[in-house]
Amino acid sequence: MDYRNLAKKYGTPLYVYDFNHISTQYTQLKSAFSGRKSLVCYAVKANSNLSVLKHLANLGAGFDCVSIGEVKRALMAGAKPYQIIFSGVGKSDDEIKIALQSEILMINLESEAELDRVEAIAKELNKTARISIRINPDVDAKTHPYISTGLNENKFGVDIVTAKKMYLKAKNSAHIEPVGVHFHIGSQLTDTQPIIDAAKIVSKILSELKSLEIDIKFFDIGGGVGITYQDEEAVNLYNYAQGILAALNGQDVTIVCEPGRFIVGNSGVLITSVLYEKFNKNKRFVVVDAAMNDLIRPSLYDAHHGVEFVGENEQNSTCDIVGPICESGDFLAKNIWLPTCKSGDLLVVKSAGAYGFSMSSNYNTRVRAAEVGVEDGKDRLIRRRETFEDLVAFETEFLK
Amino acid sequence: MDYRNLAKKYGTPLYVYDFNHISTQYTQLKSAFSGRKSLVCYAVKANSNLSVLKHLANLGAGFDCVSIGEVKRALMAGAKPYQIIFSGVGKSDDEIKIALQSEILMINLESEAELDRVEAIAKELNKTARISIRINPDVDAKTHPYISTGLNENKFGVDIVTAKKMYLKAKNSAHIEPVGVHFHIGSQLTDTQPIIDAAKIVSKILSELKSLEIDIKFFDIGGGVGITYQDEEAVNLYNYAQGILAALNGQDVTIVCEPGRFIVGNSGVLITSVLYEKFNKNKRFVVVDAAMNDLIRPSLYDAHHGVEFVGENEQNSTCDIVGPICESGDFLAKNIWLPTCKSGDLLVVKSAGAYGFSMSSNYNTRVRAAEVGVEDGKDRLIRRRETFEDLVAFETEFLK
Repeated sequence: MDYRNLAKKYGTPLYVYDFNHISTQYTQLKSAFSGRKSLVCYAVKANSNLSVLKHLANLGAGFDCVSIGEVKRALMAGAKPYQIIFSGVGKSDDEIKIALQSEILMINLESEAELDRVEAIAKELNKTARISIRINPDVDAKTHPYISTGLNENKFGVDIVTAKKMYLKAKNSAHIEPVGVHFHIGSQLTDTQPIIDAAKIVSKILSELKSLEIDIKFFDIGGGVGITYQDEEAVNLYNYAQGILAALNGQDVTIVCEPGRFIVGNSGVLITSVLYEKFNKNKRFVVVDAAMNDLIRPSLYDAHHGVEFVGENEQNSTCDIVGPICESGDFLAKNIWLPTCKSGDLLVVKSAGAYGFSMSSNYNTRVRAAEVGVEDGKDRLIRRRETFEDLVAFETEFLK
Repeated sequence: MDYRNLAKKYGTPLYVYDFNHISTQYTQLKSAFSGRKSLVCYAVKANSNLSVLKHLANLGAGFDCVSIGEVKRALMAGAKPYQIIFSGVGKSDDEIKIALQSEILMINLESEAELDRVEAIAKELNKTARISIRINPDVDAKTHPYISTGLNENKFGVDIVTAKKMYLKAKNSAHIEPVGVHFHIGSQLTDTQPIIDAAKIVSKILSELKSLEIDIKFFDIGGGVGITYQDEEAVNLYNYAQGILAALNGQDVTIVCEPGRFIVGNSGVLITSVLYEKFNKNKRFVVVDAAMNDLIRPSLYDAHHGVEFVGENEQNSTCDIVGPICESGDFLAKNIWLPTCKSGDLLVVKSAGAYGFSMSSNYNTRVRAAEVGVEDGKDRLIRRRETFEDLVAFETEFLK
């Protein structure tokens, strides 16, 4: 990609997504399950730009949504309602209502209390709610604690005993139709064995439910397939898919998976301009125009992102890449090798397509970056840069 | 405050600020330096709502800004330009230009490279830039590493030797007027002795500069005065001020301080509604409608916020307060005692006036909360709740 041209045309900091790479990732995962009924539901929270969603909808993807806002985004981008799943531990009544009215594929339940709410609202609307139940298999995903979700100490899902109770209740309700089972044990797993282990545990419930005449059509294995940020080994999708198929032991269900990061993580970069170099005693800092409000992963998860200098330069030394925000937690990379930088030089923060823009904020009254999509060598704006006026727009009328 | 009425009137999650408490905090700090020339510059980044800024401007406060967006906010709220300071390690050329054109009090420099940029831009505009230099005194503030800023390993400021070199250069420039010295060693200090220690180190430079005929008018001691979140002892403002005065040893300068959290931290709360209670094995979760996108401090800094149940209830047990966002890092409080909650009950997250809304995001396509100000018993909206349409407004036109 011609980073210089993109920076000149759209300014920095700038998120750039490679739509062709998104296609490749989607197709790879879809192909891994070929020969079986499968639905790849993109996890919208990773990158929720409407044009990204539309691109995925055109490829045939379904969508995993965790708020009614995400459901609305998916629908606006052209998703088919029956390919949308609505998940999350805290759905409000309004959200449940709109989801039911939108006739989406299924609502993924995370507690007994939620089952009761969904039933009550479905009854009120005289509808039947298609549901799945998220089972917490108590499997350690061995990832960052903040994105590990499959242990009982986490807020997600219900244990298997509770799940069975809920399925029975659902079966006996006139307004609930149980169609799926679901689990998701964590994010950014580079070893998928824990997912396969969880699938083995959860798949056992399928035959039990069948004996109770509960016909489960969708076996939703969640997301979590990791990507290479630094030196992580790439996940072997064949082994992953075969492991899941083996765990299912021939049971006739549609496999649903919910990749987010796997699809978009390495499809995006954050381009930033160098403002200054400075030394504090022997410590070298490269101050850039992107900050933790643009990309919070290094600060929040201690995450590593590769950084590439745009241009030739042989003088290398270690430095921290820091942004203009007034806290020490504002860094994009620490102790990395980089050529000597001058004001205006460009750096490219890699692997920034997932949980980059979608987590960005206006902290320090900084406008959020623009987003650009590149497909077949052509670039186009897919979200315009914010302005100061945008930031104060909902406050000015109250200034009296 | 009548939390039930506020929640009913404005919905939840809702930020509510007590403007009378803001006045009290401002006045206390201002009074601590009575008898001396002082300027209390509110740190806008803590809470940048325009109505909060206007309230402080009316009290006579100056403003410490860390982006040109914050400078614009202060000006829009009625701040006097000569009471505005522009700080930060990464100012862009455009930001410097607008700051000079706005005739603010001074630009706070953080590197030699920045001095050169400011000089060049001032020359271009045929202006004289009033500047201060941020000195990094290499003092350990003993606070969270992310908000500790006074060590050489941090990106902030310059060491004393570099500062002297910069002052000499500034003095000899036709377009730079050095008027201040500045330091800020960290945030949320409940022991202010490190600030006093830093003041002793930095004040020594004043007489040295005087002997070089550099007349420093402003001695800017930064912010950092901590508040009580849990059981921290309240800072003794008298001792703090007296310590600073002693460090100055009778030198005739205006003392500038930059409180953010101290003014607004305990002036604000976040009201949230309970969605569900759930148990995973023995662990109790109260799922509420506020999340890490509304208040990221617990997740980012492992910060403690008190939580108050609205109403009477004697059945207490420990629980985690979690939001609807799909990661385990989404929590507002852990292992706290709370009555049994039912859907619709209200919880009040305390001490949420600083670094609450200002750090909020739209993660998981969640709209940002509304903000309300209460003064003399009267409440009024000061920022309206976002809508789904607001969130996609800068993307829809590119959806083709």
